Amino acid sequence: MPNSRNRCSLEFLGRCGLGVLVTAVWLGRTRGCPCQLHPEPPPASLPQTSKKLVNSVAGCADDALAGLVACNPSLQLLQGHRVALRSDLDSLKGRVALLSGGGSGHEPAHAGFIGKGMLTGVIAGAVFTSPAVGSILAAIRAVAQAGTVGTLLIVKNYTGDRLNFGLAREQARAEGIPVEMVVVGDDSAFTVLKKAGRRGLCGTVLIHKVAGALAEAGVGLEEITDRVSVVAKAMGTLGVSLSSCSVPGSKPTFELSADEVELGLGKLVTPWVPWMATADEIVALMLDHMTSSSNASHVPVPPGSSVVLMVNNLGGLSFLELGIIADAAVCSLEGRGVKIARALVGTFMSALEMPGVSLTLLLVDEPLLKLIDAETTASAWPNVAKVWVTGRKRSRAAPTEPLAAPDSTTAAGEASKQMVLVLEWVCTTLLGLEEHLNALDRAAGDGDCGTTHSRAARAIQGWLKEGPPPASPAQLLSKLSFLLLEKMGGSSGALYGLFLTAAAQPLKAKTDLPAWSAAMDAGLEAMQKYGKAAPGDRTMLDSLWAAGQELQAWKSPGANMLQILTKAVKSAEAAAEATKNMEAGAGRASYISSARLDQPDPGAVAAAAILRAILEVLQSQGA
Amino acid sequence: MPNSRNRCSLEFLGRCGLGVLVTAVWLGRTRGCPCQLHPEPPPASLPQTSKKLVNSVAGCADDALAGLVACNPSLQLLQGHRVALRSDLDSLKGRVALLSGGGSGHEPAHAGFIGKGMLTGVIAGAVFTSPAVGSILAAIRAVAQAGTVGTLLIVKNYTGDRLNFGLAREQARAEGIPVEMVVVGDDSAFTVLKKAGRRGLCGTVLIHKVAGALAEAGVGLEEITDRVSVVAKAMGTLGVSLSSCSVPGSKPTFELSADEVELGLGKLVTPWVPWMATADEIVALMLDHMTSSSNASHVPVPPGSSVVLMVNNLGGLSFLELGIIADAAVCSLEGRGVKIARALVGTFMSALEMPGVSLTLLLVDEPLLKLIDAETTASAWPNVAKVWVTGRKRSRAAPTEPLAAPDSTTAAGEASKQMVLVLEWVCTTLLGLEEHLNALDRAAGDGDCGTTHSRAARAIQGWLKEGPPPASPAQLLSKLSFLLLEKMGGSSGALYGLFLTAAAQPLKAKTDLPAWSAAMDAGLEAMQKYGKAAPGDRTMLDSLWAAGQELQAWKSPGANMLQILTKAVKSAEAAAEATKNMEAGAGRASYISSARLDQPDPGAVAAAAILRAILEVLQSQGA
Repeated sequence: MPNSRNRCSLEFLGRCGLGVLVTAVWLGRTRGCPCQLHPEPPPASLPQTSKKLVNSVAGCADDALAGLVACNPSLQLLQGHRVALRSDLDSLKGRVALLSGGGSGHEPAHAGFIGKGMLTGVIAGAVFTSPAVGSILAAIRAVAQAGTVGTLLIVKNYTGDRLNFGLAREQARAEGIPVEMVVVGDDSAFTVLKKAGRRGLCGTVLIHKVAGALAEAGVGLEEITDRVSVVAKAMGTLGVSLSSCSVPGSKPTFELSADEVELGLGKLVTPWVPWMATADEIVALMLDHMTSSSNASHVPVPPGSSVVLMVNNLGGLSFLELGIIADAAVCSLEGRGVKIARALVGTFMSALEMPGVSLTLLLVDEPLLKLIDAETTASAWPNVAKVWVTGRKRSRAAPTEPLAAPDSTTAAGEASKQMVLVLEWVCTTLLGLEEHLNALDRAAGDGDCGTTHSRAARAIQGWLKEGPPPASPAQLLSKLSFLLLEKMGGSSGALYGLFLTAAAQPLKAKTDLPAWSAAMDAGLEAMQKYGKAAPGDRTMLDSLWAAGQELQAWKSPGANMLQILTKAVKSAEAAAEATKNMEAGAGRASYISSARLDQPDPGAVAAAAILRAILEVLQSQGA
Repeated sequence: MPNSRNRCSLEFLGRCGLGVLVTAVWLGRTRGCPCQLHPEPPPASLPQTSKKLVNSVAGCADDALAGLVACNPSLQLLQGHRVALRSDLDSLKGRVALLSGGGSGHEPAHAGFIGKGMLTGVIAGAVFTSPAVGSILAAIRAVAQAGTVGTLLIVKNYTGDRLNFGLAREQARAEGIPVEMVVVGDDSAFTVLKKAGRRGLCGTVLIHKVAGALAEAGVGLEEITDRVSVVAKAMGTLGVSLSSCSVPGSKPTFELSADEVELGLGKLVTPWVPWMATADEIVALMLDHMTSSSNASHVPVPPGSSVVLMVNNLGGLSFLELGIIADAAVCSLEGRGVKIARALVGTFMSALEMPGVSLTLLLVDEPLLKLIDAETTASAWPNVAKVWVTGRKRSRAAPTEPLAAPDSTTAAGEASKQMVLVLEWVCTTLLGLEEHLNALDRAAGDGDCGTTHSRAARAIQGWLKEGPPPASPAQLLSKLSFLLLEKMGGSSGALYGLFLTAAAQPLKAKTDLPAWSAAMDAGLEAMQKYGKAAPGDRTMLDSLWAAGQELQAWKSPGANMLQILTKAVKSAEAAAEATKNMEAGAGRASYISSARLDQPDPGAVAAAAILRAILEVLQSQGA
């Protein structure tokens, strides 16, 4: 295998690839290579030659296969060839060997499908180029010399692959090695068939699987050949892509405008240029075409038939979209009365980084399904449950909500009325501060701190109008937690939600002053734990923490509630004011340089104002 | 779960998504939706809003999770929530449940890692958005109600995830459910650590694996929490990307120019803009940064340490490049004296279709490796051999070439001399036809048919100068086959190679006239079989096949060699001429309309000329 690491000898951060057309990632500065041996790249070609993470254009296929083999101890390279073989070749004495391959750029096909129960080895060509006859022959000889009793070549139907594998086969047979060949053509794009026949696409992987299971079971060469030839005729594949891919060192293979998708992997079957189309519609169109009897390359899938479905990422599609397409395909097929036995979703046969997907349908019966389900160690074959996709329950009922826990605190009507007054005054206070808080927030955040707190205030006001709040403080805080979480939103909503949920816990058993102090402690702890802020980080925690320190005094016997609360509020206000001089350590403001922060933190100001509002009501009530 | 299939009620090829900001694949025609309800999209935003295969922007996360669950019978959705759970939840009585999740767009994380030996369930947010507290709580309740004895939340370190999972945890604990939480921060991008800490990246999947193996083994909640907390501190991840991804309905998240790569997943750690860089260099830079003690978020990997390596596709990188990066990472790590225990290569945690890769290093000892190796049914966990990557033999010796088969035909020096004359005259003839063949080829092909045949002729001339050709006809044809394959190139080289290899076989035993006729038959059969052309398809086969028909007469006792060969050549020439009126059925010319083809096929003309040249020498020799 040529070593792609032979590069320009001049040491330089970005060395260039000697002797190759375009080097590595040509990241496009408009000057020549400092080694002086390599001319400036033509500037016009730069924007069209995609960035790639490669070492050299010439070495791509070698390096990629070497990487796969390096990371998969079940594989070995065949010295002098771009061939990967099972490491445990010598355990295959007396069995049939399975070889496949083709151009590189379709990874994980085919080397990802080498393993017990799938392929014995693969021969890889350069990117999108048929493999060399000499390497195919070397692979055949290697598996024969390891003691296998014959070789099946599984070849995708492309002229170059057919000729090169065919030639190697003839040469191997001339040497006395039994070699058979199955040519897979599963492309369902062709409405009218040319003599060249259907191209070999992702369905080939299913042939690897079926042949692999048979070979592992000790079936002979002729029978495997016959059986997979039948299976290969019972399937179809169709692809769709949103744009092209580009071979390393080259421009994109084709161009699509913003309003085009390509249907049929390189063949625009329909002049179908939708104004806009959903995934459901595109999938329905694909399945219509694949299964229509007016299409010479269709796969017949009448209602009641059973299929294995493959949803194959062509390389650059997000797995999010792949899942959406898979959902659409399952829905559409089941809507046609087709039973899906297994659904394989993933990247099986790619076209470099092409953003697209292909669907494969294979008609199956139980014996064939057993072969699909047979075990394999091939790294790119997915873990598939041996359960039918169609006909099982896809959801379970939501859990029951726990009954409101019985509360041992007996809350009087009076207390509840006082609570309402407190809440109302807190809301009024926050609404009055809206503009001030927004102004403070504009210096360090996105200027919506006041708006966020007003939203919370209005939500509480609305809730109070619906009826009296729970009499028990624990239940009140819990309810407020859910309300703020839902209506206040953002990190503030979550943080107040956390504070209130945690604070509610100590109040379940008791509601005396020590319990309220413990509630404050619990709230502060939760806020610090999940919010990752500490006192001094210029957040709402600063005010609350200062107050919490003073409220420790509530834990002492005979503590004066209002006196201590008054001290706590003053301490909170001082802490809020002190945030003026703090560098932000958490929250959004931590991304702003401290030099720009000369106002107090709006969250801290709001928290202090809430505490002051509570105090004012309690004072006025003479609590 | 909201149903994203509620769309505009007007029936139309491309229906629009009612109530969502941007619909589905907005394929960009500059007019409004025909349903009249939806305004024209702002034209300026069109080129920046990427094409996507989705049904609606709002429904992306729901549809993708539904697809994953539909295709994986081991999973179920939790009704009313964007939550996926193991279908066999009720088999987990008495065990610890493991829940994870986060924003969608990172598939297959996290739902792909649900299964026996990994996660019990996941909660998915909208794209790149933290999941809802209510859904997290519902998932905790569901696994608790199924009889699990406690739940570990495995959370990636992002503020929103921390707060929402934390809040759900506090609420669940308030209901009496034992819930612990591990926050994973494996990002090694940060040279200086902020209080928010390292972000959670692909290493989180390893925590799923380790925790899953422990839970499956029946370990208790506290011990699992403690052990995975330790493991989470022994790893680091760093990513690099060539460009951005785009959230459905939005512009790309960030922009990179042609000479930039982004290092550190959203944080440009270094102002490092290489002029050009190879994969090897980029990987070395990444590993330097990840392991440098001057980086506060580094993972210490001194020589001699053992690691699990993950090479993770961020979504849109080709698997070819992924293999190249994997190769570079293995080489670079081993070059630093690091021992690689396992290497996982694939898509584990993506960022939609971002073309990039992340590397994760986890320090391991044997007990930890056992947990990594433990069985799982999770669909996205790869088949990994339980063999060390470092220290094993990655290649095997090429097979021995078979000794030249002993040839039972005794070839006289005279015959060999005649062969040389035949070959020389064939070469001279082809060189004389170069311009004529090229001219014929310009009408239907790329005009190089003459050049290709001349290349073959010169190769044979050069070979003849090296020494006398093999005396045995079988060996001669075999040698010629290899020569043409290597030097003639293209489909013609492969087809002549095939013809000669197959033709050589019958001549191994005998070299009389019937054997030569059988050789012609074998050659023609191989050519038709692998080339997929038949007589009448306007190819070189037309001439050869016509000749072959006449040469059947050689099989009759007492046949006149020259007389029959003369007839065969005339027949071949007539067949070549007749290709003028044929429609191309195979080869490159099959892509040209027959109306444009009014000249004979150059390949057929060349084949007839070769036969005539052979005849002329034999006649002149009075053979």
